[in-house]
Amino acid sequence: MERFEFHNPTKIVFGVGEAKNTGKWLRDQGVEDCLLVMGSGSARKNGAFDQVAQSLEAHGIGFSILEGVKSNPVLSKVDEGIAIVKEEGHESLLALGGGSVMDTAKAIAAGALMDDAHIWDAFLGRAEILRALPVFTVPTLAASGSEMNGYMVITNEDSGYKLATGSIHVYPKVSVLDPALTTTVPADYTAYGGVDAVCHLMEPYFNGPAQYTPIQDALAEGLMRTIMDETRECLKALDSLEHRGAMMWGATLALNGLTKAGVGEHHFPVHLIEHAISAIFDCPHGAVLGALIPGWMRFFAEKRPDRLHKFAKNVMGVGHQLEREEAIQEGIIRFTNWLKSIGCPSRLRDLEIQKADLARVATNAAFQAAIWGMDDQYGEEVIYTVLTMAF
Amino acid sequence: MERFEFHNPTKIVFGVGEAKNTGKWLRDQGVEDCLLVMGSGSARKNGAFDQVAQSLEAHGIGFSILEGVKSNPVLSKVDEGIAIVKEEGHESLLALGGGSVMDTAKAIAAGALMDDAHIWDAFLGRAEILRALPVFTVPTLAASGSEMNGYMVITNEDSGYKLATGSIHVYPKVSVLDPALTTTVPADYTAYGGVDAVCHLMEPYFNGPAQYTPIQDALAEGLMRTIMDETRECLKALDSLEHRGAMMWGATLALNGLTKAGVGEHHFPVHLIEHAISAIFDCPHGAVLGALIPGWMRFFAEKRPDRLHKFAKNVMGVGHQLEREEAIQEGIIRFTNWLKSIGCPSRLRDLEIQKADLARVATNAAFQAAIWGMDDQYGEEVIYTVLTMAF
Repeated sequence: MERFEFHNPTKIVFGVGEAKNTGKWLRDQGVEDCLLVMGSGSARKNGAFDQVAQSLEAHGIGFSILEGVKSNPVLSKVDEGIAIVKEEGHESLLALGGGSVMDTAKAIAAGALMDDAHIWDAFLGRAEILRALPVFTVPTLAASGSEMNGYMVITNEDSGYKLATGSIHVYPKVSVLDPALTTTVPADYTAYGGVDAVCHLMEPYFNGPAQYTPIQDALAEGLMRTIMDETRECLKALDSLEHRGAMMWGATLALNGLTKAGVGEHHFPVHLIEHAISAIFDCPHGAVLGALIPGWMRFFAEKRPDRLHKFAKNVMGVGHQLEREEAIQEGIIRFTNWLKSIGCPSRLRDLEIQKADLARVATNAAFQAAIWGMDDQYGEEVIYTVLTMAF
Repeated sequence: MERFEFHNPTKIVFGVGEAKNTGKWLRDQGVEDCLLVMGSGSARKNGAFDQVAQSLEAHGIGFSILEGVKSNPVLSKVDEGIAIVKEEGHESLLALGGGSVMDTAKAIAAGALMDDAHIWDAFLGRAEILRALPVFTVPTLAASGSEMNGYMVITNEDSGYKLATGSIHVYPKVSVLDPALTTTVPADYTAYGGVDAVCHLMEPYFNGPAQYTPIQDALAEGLMRTIMDETRECLKALDSLEHRGAMMWGATLALNGLTKAGVGEHHFPVHLIEHAISAIFDCPHGAVLGALIPGWMRFFAEKRPDRLHKFAKNVMGVGHQLEREEAIQEGIIRFTNWLKSIGCPSRLRDLEIQKADLARVATNAAFQAAIWGMDDQYGEEVIYTVLTMAF
């Protein structure tokens, strides 16, 4: 284990029907007003908006609404929100939606209080987030884990980059996890959410440099196995509150800092390459991750065969009787089969991306790699190689 | 999964040598002074005190010292600390020691700010802890998990009860986990610490009423397996920083609220009975837990065979070919063998408690059960039965 600091101050309130109590939690934190951030309509259709709005009213919380946040959320929407907050003087942000909505709310919360810089400068690594308005979330999708971490991912439509940044100041104060809000998520996005959560666990598990991390491994392996199982169970019964609940809590824990604490300094290369693809092609995040992972695993198997072998045995249940190299390949095959079984792409060509597109994806990803200081390991050529292997 | 709230605001700083930076974290929280609480001398002998004291001085943190906290810490020591805090006007509590020291510091932190009640009233369920001085901890033993939770257990020597209580206000602000401080813990207490941590995971795992908790089970099972392995590894090499580090982080996670969130309302009957035994016989906490667990498991196997069976398979590695009843018994045997392998008592007679003592232990435990509202399940007769089965 390597040195780490772990501090996750988000309060989680989990329960079927808890969305109806959202206003109580804002009131509990001394908040009397918020900008309610939402997506493109599903929360209005499935009743989530009504429940949350009524609860805000019942607790005397005033609010304006910012709607129309799209998947792969864009900087122009963040700017729109910042302008509203400044003009109307909102005290807090309340996100009702998936990762895109939560990340947009976080970026608004931080951006509204940046005096000498623009929020995009933080994504470029050129400004630091020193404070933010309090953020509350009511997630409607089990996927990003944004409800219990300080990360946000935003696409700048002008420059064509999808970048991530983070700050302790945008950890949600309270996140209300109501599995009932996720039962209307269609099968494809349910599957993509599962892949996103598994990928969040996988990247530190594979990329952490620490040589001995038995506690972290046990947690990550257990969560990966369980989320993979639960994704399948959800797809069998989309309205199952039990399985939706397990998915929701699993996805939250997958990126709340716990499983990566102590694995050492590491990066998220699969996410990085995904961001480049989504920036250019605007694909669903989890679908692209699925399309990348098996190829990336084949690429990475030479670098850390020990980790791939452990994954094969402890997550994919590959028997101990196989030789290491054979076991690794069997683990990758089984993971690929899981992707197929849930209807997720497992190679880039499934996304109808052309081989000729890979070069500019690599260029875009390499720009991000430089921001993260990981260009020594993931320069443009290496990224191109990974893309080719995933094609 | 059942409804839950999870909120753990403690910041963890983990790393070999981090005790030397303790002062920085108090300063970081705006604290300029503390009452340093310690045990009976080991922190002075092994250098931990020097490291922490020098760090406090280097960061300009003033401090007084309260020494001599014993295992099964007593209320008179808490009162002594409260008097010092009130007289000298300390701003915060810093615990350097094991669970006893941390719990004493928490009780002082809360007790010093109780105006209309005595801290013992909170243990009796007759007063609420509404605030506390900030608590910091530098644990020297992997066991209690007190460094990342709001619990404290104190023995009232006058009344002869060892009771537990908890509050969000006594969660440590920062806990500095330095595995190097634990390498001088002798073999017996190293083993008892492992048993304590495993028991913290076991009790919600078995006693939670929720029927479907795959995420929680995966976390608890993974931690139980790993802590059991790591206890053995530590005993093979007491000075191994890697294994001590894994034990330390594992024990912290075992009772930080994570694995029990969502399992529903549950109690800690094994801990409750242990508290009665320690209150009367002043035995090492983990040793008594070990002496109780196999007997309690045999008692409990009839109530929740499903959970015992799951434990046997997923924690003790009992093969799927056995029938349920056989598998359960095999799981209990394997767990008992683990206790024996690490030198921990596995039945009450190992502690040299006489059979004639069991009745008054049951009476003492039944008093606690009433405070916790669990006397419907664990009345005096039932507790006596468990004690007999553990004898």
